[in-house]
Amino acid sequence: MAAVQLVEVGPRDGLQNEDAVLSIDDKIELIERSVASGAKRIEAVSFVNPKRVPQMAGAEEVMAGVPRSDSVSYIGLVLNRRGLERALEARVDEVNVVVVATEEFSRRNQGCSVDEAVAAAHDIVRDARAAGVAGTVTIAAAFGCPFSGEVDPATVGELVARIAECEPAEIALADTIGVGVPAQVRRLSEVASRNAPNIPQRWHFHNTRNTGYANALTALEVGAHALDASIGGFGGCPFAPAATGNIASEDLIYAFDRSGVDTGVNMNVLVEAATWLGGALAKSIPAQLGRAGGFPVG
Amino acid sequence: MAAVQLVEVGPRDGLQNEDAVLSIDDKIELIERSVASGAKRIEAVSFVNPKRVPQMAGAEEVMAGVPRSDSVSYIGLVLNRRGLERALEARVDEVNVVVVATEEFSRRNQGCSVDEAVAAAHDIVRDARAAGVAGTVTIAAAFGCPFSGEVDPATVGELVARIAECEPAEIALADTIGVGVPAQVRRLSEVASRNAPNIPQRWHFHNTRNTGYANALTALEVGAHALDASIGGFGGCPFAPAATGNIASEDLIYAFDRSGVDTGVNMNVLVEAATWLGGALAKSIPAQLGRAGGFPVG
Repeated sequence: MAAVQLVEVGPRDGLQNEDAVLSIDDKIELIERSVASGAKRIEAVSFVNPKRVPQMAGAEEVMAGVPRSDSVSYIGLVLNRRGLERALEARVDEVNVVVVATEEFSRRNQGCSVDEAVAAAHDIVRDARAAGVAGTVTIAAAFGCPFSGEVDPATVGELVARIAECEPAEIALADTIGVGVPAQVRRLSEVASRNAPNIPQRWHFHNTRNTGYANALTALEVGAHALDASIGGFGGCPFAPAATGNIASEDLIYAFDRSGVDTGVNMNVLVEAATWLGGALAKSIPAQLGRAGGFPVG
Repeated sequence: MAAVQLVEVGPRDGLQNEDAVLSIDDKIELIERSVASGAKRIEAVSFVNPKRVPQMAGAEEVMAGVPRSDSVSYIGLVLNRRGLERALEARVDEVNVVVVATEEFSRRNQGCSVDEAVAAAHDIVRDARAAGVAGTVTIAAAFGCPFSGEVDPATVGELVARIAECEPAEIALADTIGVGVPAQVRRLSEVASRNAPNIPQRWHFHNTRNTGYANALTALEVGAHALDASIGGFGGCPFAPAATGNIASEDLIYAFDRSGVDTGVNMNVLVEAATWLGGALAKSIPAQLGRAGGFPVG
């Protein structure tokens, strides 16, 4: 039986773009529900400036309150040295560092050039490793940029090669704005495998244009080590305010379960968690499983 | 460049499960908008009993009002001899006959056994051909049945072989209730290709559980001749009342356009048509393209 890791990113990317800001207790409950679903890796918090991203405030309090066990790994998003310090202090199990694939998005979103972001990622991954914490580097906007449009897979391939120099535990390829198609997944997987053959690939998809699940299933086919998804499919897209967000964990697990792919994650627990989260965010749930029900019934 | 036929089924399957019933003029306008999008095959009407399916009433009036041209083929759904007579009288270009893959769904939905439905399909396809009209046979519930659950691909394979005896122009494999996954598409394509190697395959997907687009792209990969989709993704599912319907034409064309697959259909015209149809049905649009916008922008 094939197997893949689900990285539950609901507590981080799922909440980051929602208008409502959850209480610390609700954030902890979302993480507890993620653990209860069977997810073994959870992107739990972001150590960004809470003035810039108020939805992500209270990362330290959240991490102080989550249940700890050897079988669950909590990931903190960090963008700079200050973020890494906070993450280590809060005892995350992994860090995820972001490098944007295009110059314009990098400057607008991270406030630095791509070169500066790569250098920062090297430092963060090395310092995290020295502290016993695994580091992922995510290449954002790898499938397309809201400012500069198409992104050449060769550009992503070059970035992969440069990132690989610091030997991260994983490289994640992210369709940040949800424009990708399976043909791109195949091309990016090829260039990444060529330029960093020994580094596992993680993938991050949004369903903004209804291609997210096709992309995820294709990523699995070409050897994905891990796939991001978010309970309920919350998360939205800052560049298309009416659009939906991350691919939903429960809908992805439905497809995996029926395809004979083992994740160890229970779809029904996710559906319940999404119902609870929809209530907490006062929003309708983008995922379909809760409405449609599983199959076969019962 | 790869190519595939889009069969626009919005006027038939898209409207069939909606609560609102469109006027004859609106039905004709939807077909005109489908033609304007560049669709070359349009499932325009259903010759079922209007007492059983009021949404499909007025098929004759609709067909009398649509623009005719050599480059567009109008398909009428028929279930029996009476339906075929009406379809020929109304001058459809093609007929689509349905056989359900499972005994229980066949008896409940069509009021006949699978054997009786196969025999009827043979007669209809032969009589239509004698009248110069091409016939497709659709195998409904080929991916799963709302009553009997899992459907063995071998059962579908046997049905394909029996249907092939009447040499239809096309066999369509339909995920009527939206439970399928790409692994099933591959298996069904294999058995259908083995049992009817010379008959083109058409596929019909619903996005009820967010697997529809992945299924469609997989069908294309394994040699689909034609794919059904519906403007705006309307259509719903009678077995999951809150769920969405057919895969949306505009979202499918987005994926095809970005994958280098030629259909000759214009996504922007479809988005406009979906906006109009959402107004006519007084319903929000399941498709995502209208909300998210295309890519690259402009």
